Amino acid sequence: MSRKKRVYYFGPAGAEGSSSQKNLLGGKGANLAEMCNLKIPVPPGFTISTSACVDFFAGGNVWPDGLINEITKSVKRIEIETGKGFGDKENPLLLSVRSGARASMPGMMDTILNLGLNDETVEGLGKISGNERFAWDSYRRFLAMFADVALDINRSQFESALGRLKEKLGVKSDTDVPVESLRELALEYKSIIEGAFDEGFPQDPKTQLSMAIGAVFRSWHNDRAKEYRRMYKIPESWGTAVNIQSMVFGNLGETSGTGVAFTRNPSTGERLFFGEYLFNAQGEDVVAGVRTPLSIDQMGARTPSAHKELIRIYQRLEKHYRDMLDIEFTVENGVLFMLQCRVGKRTAQAAVRIAVEMAGERLISKSEAVNRIHADQLDQLLHDTIDPSAGLSPVAHGLAASPGAGVGRVVFTAEDAVTWKKNNEKTILVRRETSPEDIAGMNAAEGILTATGGMTSHAAVVARGMGRCCVAGAEELNINEVEKFFAVNGHTVKEGDYITIDGTGGNVYLGQAPLVKPELSGEYDTLMSWADKFRKLKVRANADTPKDAKIARKFGAEGIGLCRTEHMFFEGDRIIAVREMILADTLEERKEALAKLLPMQKSDFKGIFDVMEGTPVTIRLLDPPLHEFLPKTESDFEKVALDLGVDISILKSRSDSHHEFNPMLGHRGCRLGITYPEIYEMQVRAIMTAVCELKKKGKKVKPEIMIPLISHVEELTKLRKLVQNVVDEVLGEFGLKMNVMIGTMIELPRAAITAKRIAEEADFFSFGTNDLTQTTFGLSRDDSGRFLPHYVADGILASDPFVALDRDGVGELIKIGVAGGRATKPKLEIGICGEHGGEPSSVEFCHQNGFDYVSCSPFRTPIARLAAAQSAIMEKENTLSDMPPGKTGKKIVVKSKPSKKAASRWSAKKKALVKKETEKAEKEKAERRAKKKATKSPGGKTPKR
Amino acid sequence: MSRKKRVYYFGPAGAEGSSSQKNLLGGKGANLAEMCNLKIPVPPGFTISTSACVDFFAGGNVWPDGLINEITKSVKRIEIETGKGFGDKENPLLLSVRSGARASMPGMMDTILNLGLNDETVEGLGKISGNERFAWDSYRRFLAMFADVALDINRSQFESALGRLKEKLGVKSDTDVPVESLRELALEYKSIIEGAFDEGFPQDPKTQLSMAIGAVFRSWHNDRAKEYRRMYKIPESWGTAVNIQSMVFGNLGETSGTGVAFTRNPSTGERLFFGEYLFNAQGEDVVAGVRTPLSIDQMGARTPSAHKELIRIYQRLEKHYRDMLDIEFTVENGVLFMLQCRVGKRTAQAAVRIAVEMAGERLISKSEAVNRIHADQLDQLLHDTIDPSAGLSPVAHGLAASPGAGVGRVVFTAEDAVTWKKNNEKTILVRRETSPEDIAGMNAAEGILTATGGMTSHAAVVARGMGRCCVAGAEELNINEVEKFFAVNGHTVKEGDYITIDGTGGNVYLGQAPLVKPELSGEYDTLMSWADKFRKLKVRANADTPKDAKIARKFGAEGIGLCRTEHMFFEGDRIIAVREMILADTLEERKEALAKLLPMQKSDFKGIFDVMEGTPVTIRLLDPPLHEFLPKTESDFEKVALDLGVDISILKSRSDSHHEFNPMLGHRGCRLGITYPEIYEMQVRAIMTAVCELKKKGKKVKPEIMIPLISHVEELTKLRKLVQNVVDEVLGEFGLKMNVMIGTMIELPRAAITAKRIAEEADFFSFGTNDLTQTTFGLSRDDSGRFLPHYVADGILASDPFVALDRDGVGELIKIGVAGGRATKPKLEIGICGEHGGEPSSVEFCHQNGFDYVSCSPFRTPIARLAAAQSAIMEKENTLSDMPPGKTGKKIVVKSKPSKKAASRWSAKKKALVKKETEKAEKEKAERRAKKKATKSPGGKTPKR
Repeated sequence: MSRKKRVYYFGPAGAEGSSSQKNLLGGKGANLAEMCNLKIPVPPGFTISTSACVDFFAGGNVWPDGLINEITKSVKRIEIETGKGFGDKENPLLLSVRSGARASMPGMMDTILNLGLNDETVEGLGKISGNERFAWDSYRRFLAMFADVALDINRSQFESALGRLKEKLGVKSDTDVPVESLRELALEYKSIIEGAFDEGFPQDPKTQLSMAIGAVFRSWHNDRAKEYRRMYKIPESWGTAVNIQSMVFGNLGETSGTGVAFTRNPSTGERLFFGEYLFNAQGEDVVAGVRTPLSIDQMGARTPSAHKELIRIYQRLEKHYRDMLDIEFTVENGVLFMLQCRVGKRTAQAAVRIAVEMAGERLISKSEAVNRIHADQLDQLLHDTIDPSAGLSPVAHGLAASPGAGVGRVVFTAEDAVTWKKNNEKTILVRRETSPEDIAGMNAAEGILTATGGMTSHAAVVARGMGRCCVAGAEELNINEVEKFFAVNGHTVKEGDYITIDGTGGNVYLGQAPLVKPELSGEYDTLMSWADKFRKLKVRANADTPKDAKIARKFGAEGIGLCRTEHMFFEGDRIIAVREMILADTLEERKEALAKLLPMQKSDFKGIFDVMEGTPVTIRLLDPPLHEFLPKTESDFEKVALDLGVDISILKSRSDSHHEFNPMLGHRGCRLGITYPEIYEMQVRAIMTAVCELKKKGKKVKPEIMIPLISHVEELTKLRKLVQNVVDEVLGEFGLKMNVMIGTMIELPRAAITAKRIAEEADFFSFGTNDLTQTTFGLSRDDSGRFLPHYVADGILASDPFVALDRDGVGELIKIGVAGGRATKPKLEIGICGEHGGEPSSVEFCHQNGFDYVSCSPFRTPIARLAAAQSAIMEKENTLSDMPPGKTGKKIVVKSKPSKKAASRWSAKKKALVKKETEKAEKEKAERRAKKKATKSPGGKTPKR
Repeated sequence: MSRKKRVYYFGPAGAEGSSSQKNLLGGKGANLAEMCNLKIPVPPGFTISTSACVDFFAGGNVWPDGLINEITKSVKRIEIETGKGFGDKENPLLLSVRSGARASMPGMMDTILNLGLNDETVEGLGKISGNERFAWDSYRRFLAMFADVALDINRSQFESALGRLKEKLGVKSDTDVPVESLRELALEYKSIIEGAFDEGFPQDPKTQLSMAIGAVFRSWHNDRAKEYRRMYKIPESWGTAVNIQSMVFGNLGETSGTGVAFTRNPSTGERLFFGEYLFNAQGEDVVAGVRTPLSIDQMGARTPSAHKELIRIYQRLEKHYRDMLDIEFTVENGVLFMLQCRVGKRTAQAAVRIAVEMAGERLISKSEAVNRIHADQLDQLLHDTIDPSAGLSPVAHGLAASPGAGVGRVVFTAEDAVTWKKNNEKTILVRRETSPEDIAGMNAAEGILTATGGMTSHAAVVARGMGRCCVAGAEELNINEVEKFFAVNGHTVKEGDYITIDGTGGNVYLGQAPLVKPELSGEYDTLMSWADKFRKLKVRANADTPKDAKIARKFGAEGIGLCRTEHMFFEGDRIIAVREMILADTLEERKEALAKLLPMQKSDFKGIFDVMEGTPVTIRLLDPPLHEFLPKTESDFEKVALDLGVDISILKSRSDSHHEFNPMLGHRGCRLGITYPEIYEMQVRAIMTAVCELKKKGKKVKPEIMIPLISHVEELTKLRKLVQNVVDEVLGEFGLKMNVMIGTMIELPRAAITAKRIAEEADFFSFGTNDLTQTTFGLSRDDSGRFLPHYVADGILASDPFVALDRDGVGELIKIGVAGGRATKPKLEIGICGEHGGEPSSVEFCHQNGFDYVSCSPFRTPIARLAAAQSAIMEKENTLSDMPPGKTGKKIVVKSKPSKKAASRWSAKKKALVKKETEKAEKEKAERRAKKKATKSPGGKTPKR
């Protein structure tokens, strides 16, 4: 009977698999095979395919026909290659049995080492290693590991037996337990196993092996693996491969050892082979931190040939994989064995440097270099971050609403934030949710922390626009705004207490965490200049003030895609005129109030046009419902009553009449323009007066006037006329002529559906994907906090649709809108100004659908530029992205998650390595900075090889 | 040069036009031509086409080439036919000049009579009529009318001149002014004209004619005509025709007279020629009410041959037009002339009787009979109405939210409505807006009046469901709910004061108006039975209680399309258990509270299934956000705190945590089922236990379980499993097997867009067009009151999209949804359960798009049945509807609007006629009822001819 192949051998003679077979062999198996194919020394072994695992489950946890037979043949082959025997009393072959899925799932599944030991082979191992203690220690470890993994016996019983033994012996460390006691311990371990498992510990290595393989298969379905897959959207159906490999030992003497290395510095990106090595040691010893590891250079002194070979191998591997690698190796009696190689994780800074330098080395092309950076990673380069070496634990979690970290003293009102700032106090503004009147306070604070609200809540949107860090929707916070404190997980934080928030990760910390300042390198500039050459999408920024506009230009924005006029309404004394306007009883009174606002708005626009000279500036006419501007507290009312000279009760009743049940679906956007045309007239007059005054000075100004919340073409027909009339009027007053583009937002499903008609009246479309997402899903961004996170956690939604554009729903509507618009006007300018404009997968969608530009908050401009470039490159390569939304680029960087078991035997070691190197790099950077300051030399050029 | 024909002659010899040319000749002109073609005597004349009018405007109010020439030729032809001369001093031809558009626009445009009179012809008219006073009175009237219409001279000057004259003479009535004084008056009128118009009054009849025609053309653009067109969506571009006709006079002696008639009774529909006649009179005399008119029979005594001819003509016309007609005629010296004929307006009752009887007479087919009724008209037959003869003026207007009229004493709280009802007081519940906890009060009241909210606001939806009349969004009301009064247009209405509301017309009246009870005739039953044979759509009802279900079956519902489970939550003591459930702190507590609700819900469902035996019942699982059920006032909180034994402050803080900014887009619908699966589990258990208990008794039960607010297929996947599990569990407990359909509402744009995927998990779709309209437009039904009415009034929207389905936007999404659903499951059951399910044009849309059923409030079931039949007939006739939304059927019944000028010279007369006849019919009906009661004979059969 011919069956499908389920076992893939690898060894010095070459391998049956290769690195292209990750789906079948898992990542680890595929790379082991690849190294064998490259004739790189790897302890021989074999990989049981993921499809064997899938068949195992499909059959109800039963061995697929013939699998045992294939395994037996492969074990025989290992015996031949190694000259050892599986179960041989004299020279026993020991095996490691490890999981290895398609996607990295560090530490989530089970591993068994030293398999093949039993009461007889342990003696042989002792003899052949010349180290009886090592043999018995390995045996008792294997017994406990096997019992835990294969027999599901709680590990604590073994641990307490060891504890009792150490107490009896009066020793503290495991290593002080003498060999005789280890023999006793092994005996006790076996009796524990017998007590829990009728058949007792299987002495037959073959039985051990098949039980171990079954256990690794089954560990695919353990709780933490399931949880991990849910988090990272790894399909349940994939199954895991199992790698069985002959054990090699780094602890057989002075010419043995074990090490871990990165082919380049994972923290700085510097092109320097970089790692640590421990003589006469196994992985466990490194984790235990018994001895201080040596550098790789120091290794050369003791085992020069192994060192030389390692250098040759790493260079060969880097050229072969064309990327920075993370490798693990062991030297057994002077002979080097590679145990693992994979693409190495790295910081954003390192990623940029490595990509640019590898392109310089002609290892990769410029387009590959651009593709190597996960666009979202750039955030790390642009904002303060919490020093990772501080190793802090957050006290609460929320949404990562606006990146960066901030330290400050807690205040609960916007006013306090402003006042404290005047006294040079740094603050974090803590609110249930912010409202437009908090703008000044948000600006004064270092960061914003809210208890409710989602990724596009007011706090989140405004904070991103300002470049303030923000953690939103931290539901664990119980805020008492009146008595000015909040309770969180057993802690009480009062006004004035220090906290730290991390808007990149969505974490809240008590006290003051150490921050790391961002620094943009020369490599960053190089990479972005390459990206700009590849991309086709223009990138604009959402900016409401000259200050924001300046930041936007600095980060490479090519115009403003959304200037929200309402934010200007809150500044200084204007809010008084705004409230007068809203609470006016007659048209006359309203016009009077508007006349006061006109010069203020004009000067705002003038400032923005000036900064953005030569680039388009899209100004949205008033959008939010008027009640957002009204006073809310009793004291606010008193103030306004005084300001306006109106009785407070009249004021309140007028204010009440503006109340709405669902303001998001209420009297806002163009509906205001239709019912109060005088407001839009004032705004257009302010815009055009600013334009004309600048034009008179010879400045190049490109205004685009945008009308929000259109649902029916007739709204636009009417308002376009109104806008055009004022435009013509003002141009006439100045004796100027120019064409001013008048367009609309497409932010309601009906607008998308009827885009063909709407385009007749519009010079441009700008998709407002925040509102479009809200209405398409019927989901309020401010209220979704109570269920949306559960939706994402439960996998009902792949990701928060306010973060990554929902392609199946909202995206389909956008496609209908684009097709409709371009059917009427083939060259219609189309952009996006929702929060999605700075999110990589959404930028890719815009590129694929023929948008002219994306617009995002100033601080996300570089991300949008890079994502746009990657989309263009991907299109050129004719490779349609099959990435899930929220991910893009060629590398998925999976963040590791703390787990009960160590992620791998090396993980702690590597963490320490990276940490050390980060600290070193920081120190060097500081030194460089100091030097730069002293010499004032222009730095930051890409170092040449 | 060959030109297009612009003038169409008509006269005894036949006509150049016909009734099929309404677009070219206007309604009046086409019917005059048609009568001539039928050899029916009509004073000769001609019609200037609408296209001549259009050309006139296109050329900048300039006469199209050749038109004057055509007119001159046609006048000559009239002279020949009549033997009179235009401007002839001995025997002058006088002309009437009237507008006549394609659609009836009664009284909106100008008319000039007696044209051709001047200082000389007036003398000739005096002689030939033997009535000098009549001639001079006609002259002075013509002078004033001409000055007003053709020269734009304010009429008041002429009126005050007449007033001064009467004062001088010491007479009260115009008719008492002697002929000499009328001569003087004419002189004065001419000098007024000279004072305002340099060239003075034109003596030349030809000049008079061309000025008059130009004035009628221009009157197309007068303000009231524009306003009327905007109201009734009549295109600006149509233009008006002008009818020029020789004058005939009914006031030339005892063998002259004038009359108006309907070919059948327009109030009852009785087949009886019916009208009034006045000897020796002109129209003006009838309007003035100087003498009591005679019946048509009495006319026969004086002018038997004219009477005989009239009878012959009306019968001929009715057969020819195959409809009840409204005719106008004049007898001049014993000779009958027809002046007008058109399809007559009628009451709903008359419309039904006439249609059924005409089908019986084989004048029209059954399908035509069904098409003759405007489906919306049926409302008149099903609800109380305000007696039209009372002639009341409303004190305020609002939306016609739920039809019918109600009289009662004003109360401001639901509790008061309940208490007062117990004391046998009829009430009208007046609220700013109702909320679900007002249900009991709404049920206790005669009607509901709200100040805010639209056509699908809570008040409107619930009132329609209950069959209570409702006027919603009456913004003029200034309600003070605390001090219990409202102010409206200068009146103050206190608690306990009587008011009357008319939910059919959207009017509010002070005091107690007399009401007319509805009565369903045998003809109604006949018509509906015909309709049921034609229609393909099934009609279900939205009903939440056994009581509503009974009403629904009575009105012909074939199932329940929407049973809202949440309304049950408010009844009696349940709200306590509901609040316990919501405010529970643990899952345990919540389950306990749910266990209390289970038996209550079960008995509700049992009652409904019992009433609806054999028909499908679609039950929607809990939909509204939980905070709707929470207490709102301080006293409510106190009560609940007591009920639950929880501290009031804890209760308030838990309640606060449920607050939402935009509840419509919040934590509701299936989102509740996902976060609180135990709620849906309880509901499904209640449904299935009810089903099983009834099945055990041998009843046929067809439950369909509907999951609301799905936006993503994964939500449905998850909840479908949950529902199916409970269904299987309960069936297992009862040892029963059955297939229960599990489906979903499509009420969010994303659901429509992704319907293909959603259908994989759904056994049926039910389009929830209320929410779909809200989200597609981004428009909250509760908040739209402040701008939506302006939108409709301004013509931005053709109609309120919550009333008539918006085909271009929402309709397109529905089409995408239907196509997607049927692509996955070709036989997927598709229905609609939004408020649109009972609106004729929306029903037509559902028919056209392959729906299986529509579901509407019980009281609209007959309307839906009729509209469904009309849609099927229309489809069969392969005539696609080009009706604007909001209208359907073949007849557009245009309601007349009060205007400054009388609608026509006959309008007042006709109104009086109809009123008199209505009163007569009411009286007869009462007598019949009394008789029926006495004899207990089955009445209401269609009378045979």
